[in-house]
Amino acid sequence: MTQLELAKEGAVSPQMGQVAQHEGLAVEVIRQGVALGRIVIPANINHRGLVPCGIGQGLKTKVNANIGTSPDFGDIDTELGKLKVAVGAGADTVMDLSTGGDIAAIRRAIIAESTLPVGTVPIYQASIEALANHGAIVKMTDDDLFGTIEEHARDGVDFITVHCGVTRQAIDRLRIQKRVADVVSRGGAFLMGWMLHNESENPLYEQYDRLLEIARQYDVTLSLGDGMRPGSLADATDRAQIEELITLGELVQRAYQAGVQVIVEGPGHLPINQIEANVQLQKSLCNEAPFYVLGPLVTDVAAGYDHITGAIGGAIAAAAGTDFLCYVTPAEHLSLPDSEDVRQGVIASRIAAHAGDIAKGIKGAGEWDRKMSLARKNFNWAEQARLSLDPERFSRVHEKHTTGGQACSMCGEFCAMEIAEKYLSIPVTKCP
Amino acid sequence: MTQLELAKEGAVSPQMGQVAQHEGLAVEVIRQGVALGRIVIPANINHRGLVPCGIGQGLKTKVNANIGTSPDFGDIDTELGKLKVAVGAGADTVMDLSTGGDIAAIRRAIIAESTLPVGTVPIYQASIEALANHGAIVKMTDDDLFGTIEEHARDGVDFITVHCGVTRQAIDRLRIQKRVADVVSRGGAFLMGWMLHNESENPLYEQYDRLLEIARQYDVTLSLGDGMRPGSLADATDRAQIEELITLGELVQRAYQAGVQVIVEGPGHLPINQIEANVQLQKSLCNEAPFYVLGPLVTDVAAGYDHITGAIGGAIAAAAGTDFLCYVTPAEHLSLPDSEDVRQGVIASRIAAHAGDIAKGIKGAGEWDRKMSLARKNFNWAEQARLSLDPERFSRVHEKHTTGGQACSMCGEFCAMEIAEKYLSIPVTKCP
Repeated sequence: MTQLELAKEGAVSPQMGQVAQHEGLAVEVIRQGVALGRIVIPANINHRGLVPCGIGQGLKTKVNANIGTSPDFGDIDTELGKLKVAVGAGADTVMDLSTGGDIAAIRRAIIAESTLPVGTVPIYQASIEALANHGAIVKMTDDDLFGTIEEHARDGVDFITVHCGVTRQAIDRLRIQKRVADVVSRGGAFLMGWMLHNESENPLYEQYDRLLEIARQYDVTLSLGDGMRPGSLADATDRAQIEELITLGELVQRAYQAGVQVIVEGPGHLPINQIEANVQLQKSLCNEAPFYVLGPLVTDVAAGYDHITGAIGGAIAAAAGTDFLCYVTPAEHLSLPDSEDVRQGVIASRIAAHAGDIAKGIKGAGEWDRKMSLARKNFNWAEQARLSLDPERFSRVHEKHTTGGQACSMCGEFCAMEIAEKYLSIPVTKCP
Repeated sequence: MTQLELAKEGAVSPQMGQVAQHEGLAVEVIRQGVALGRIVIPANINHRGLVPCGIGQGLKTKVNANIGTSPDFGDIDTELGKLKVAVGAGADTVMDLSTGGDIAAIRRAIIAESTLPVGTVPIYQASIEALANHGAIVKMTDDDLFGTIEEHARDGVDFITVHCGVTRQAIDRLRIQKRVADVVSRGGAFLMGWMLHNESENPLYEQYDRLLEIARQYDVTLSLGDGMRPGSLADATDRAQIEELITLGELVQRAYQAGVQVIVEGPGHLPINQIEANVQLQKSLCNEAPFYVLGPLVTDVAAGYDHITGAIGGAIAAAAGTDFLCYVTPAEHLSLPDSEDVRQGVIASRIAAHAGDIAKGIKGAGEWDRKMSLARKNFNWAEQARLSLDPERFSRVHEKHTTGGQACSMCGEFCAMEIAEKYLSIPVTKCP
């Protein structure tokens, strides 16, 4: 039985218990959230050594790090290195997006190594194998696709991105829309190409029950991909995007009824003033299933710094109710990320997630900041480092210039907090 | 006559013309904005070589970079180096916050070198000279303070931070409040210490007309400092902060009546869900004078990455109507920033400002992103680099891994945009 089926029946799984403990919440809160489809616990029955992680309403906002090879770069060791960096920087999940080398071997190595939930996008491997075996991606058969999905499920993948909402109708609406950047989702583009070439409906949509059956068998969480996500601010919140989202909402309902855990992916590139509306739309159209956003990036012009544009969008999205942030690295739009890009991406997204958690009132979020501020007020540098998001970097920057005094080198002897403390100790004459 | 006096009389100054040209707006829009006190053009009559910059309603959000020595680090050459870096990275203004070395000489060198408006905080120099001349900051006389302010004005400083709202009443309210971090503003702490020790009212408040007279004579824009700004999320939007803001609103009105240009400074540390309310409060209480925020930082725990926490807060603040962002560097809370910190700080704030401008609908803001997206869609890498916020970094990251193909190394031959373009060219059978 899946976590959802158990929760619906009122049963508490060990995974729910572990999530409750990690979140500092009662296990019944977790069970109820899972039973309502507002919390998922991606936990493939075949992923040995997994430390379960809850994603959804009332829980800490989670951060995913994408790793994996491209056709031209990366290998098992490099990707395992990135996994280690992602875990060290505090990612909550990883996705292996490999499209080069021995994709199956890389995936299996990552699953074996990772205590974090692992996600994949099976259409990548299915498409690339179709190219190798049949000479073209568009020659992929339904069985190729579902066979690959089953292979990922059997291997222990905890959640898979499936672009089930890239329907004929969505593509028609995309064409009427006349976008600046058309389709920027790789999986979405593979499927759209296949559909247009073969004049067929999307098999992941048409044979959704087949997908649900596989997902249910291994308790793979479906992450309904947004193949129509805007890849440019000019395309944000357009008809093609919302057409797909409505379909995803219907598929959320069917997954829920089938006992399959499900989350929904979202944009992409969005101006700041459209982020909250996007979160509300997703929650409203998709039965409040957990929302997983890619960024969102709040400007198109900052390539080289898209971990920052993504952190801005992610923080606003999280504050508005988004549950799960896919990181963006400084290499986005430019290059396959290396380990340092992975680290920077995870940290930036963790800042966004935590800032969102404070705004959402997640348990314990504000308390962390209060402790840090007290340590700062008390000039307790060791405690500040310990409490900081990245203690190593904290200490490195702090030690760059040191003066020997208790204050930092920004103000030295003219530290506001030192002066304030001294003079505020003068006895009060007027206050009650 | 000041820019404000001219604008009120219906006169258009050369500075208004230059601002109009830079913003792509009609000069009458600028004149009206200045006349209403909603736009300022900090332009000291003694700052030779200044390229005027407008700050306020309907204009691009501007970014300030703080440079200057601390008691222990920095010298003229280092600070001139930081000025160059700030200008190169695209700062709109700089503030010289020097508190070490020959403060007057450093300021004069920066003004002579800078075509950007230059701001200072005269209380720093006044306090430090009081320490040197009288043995204690609290022995500073009113004439010391106003003499230093006049010196800065005569030297050509375009805007000065003056913490006029740190009143006895504000300090009383601070004490009743019982904050986590008390006072984190250096100027605010100097003044508060002086006031408590001498059992006196703030001379910048009590003798505000004297301040207005100096400002009017040189057309120095007053930046009303927020000495009571929260330095911890736990202290955000508290009674001490808002008490000071009400006073600043009254002082805005008096400055406006006296023909003195004025802006208002704001926090500081704020959770995401309080930023918009803070912007609305400032606009409402301060006659819609331009708002200048320091960050705001949306979490206390990310020291080492506060350029990112500041960019998150700054973007949200800008989108909500903030006009002017003071950058935060990765060294904040830890160390005096070096040149690379300055560069990172300016870039992060520019991302925030631009993302805010898109949301605010500032003229031309969205068009920049559209052009970038079109260049991306067309795989025109040279044009993308040209349009990017930091062309040098764009090219460096792009070239880290290259494949020779037109797509980047993230997806290589499996580029979504290439695939989409190919298959969307299949003739439409169903759409209109």
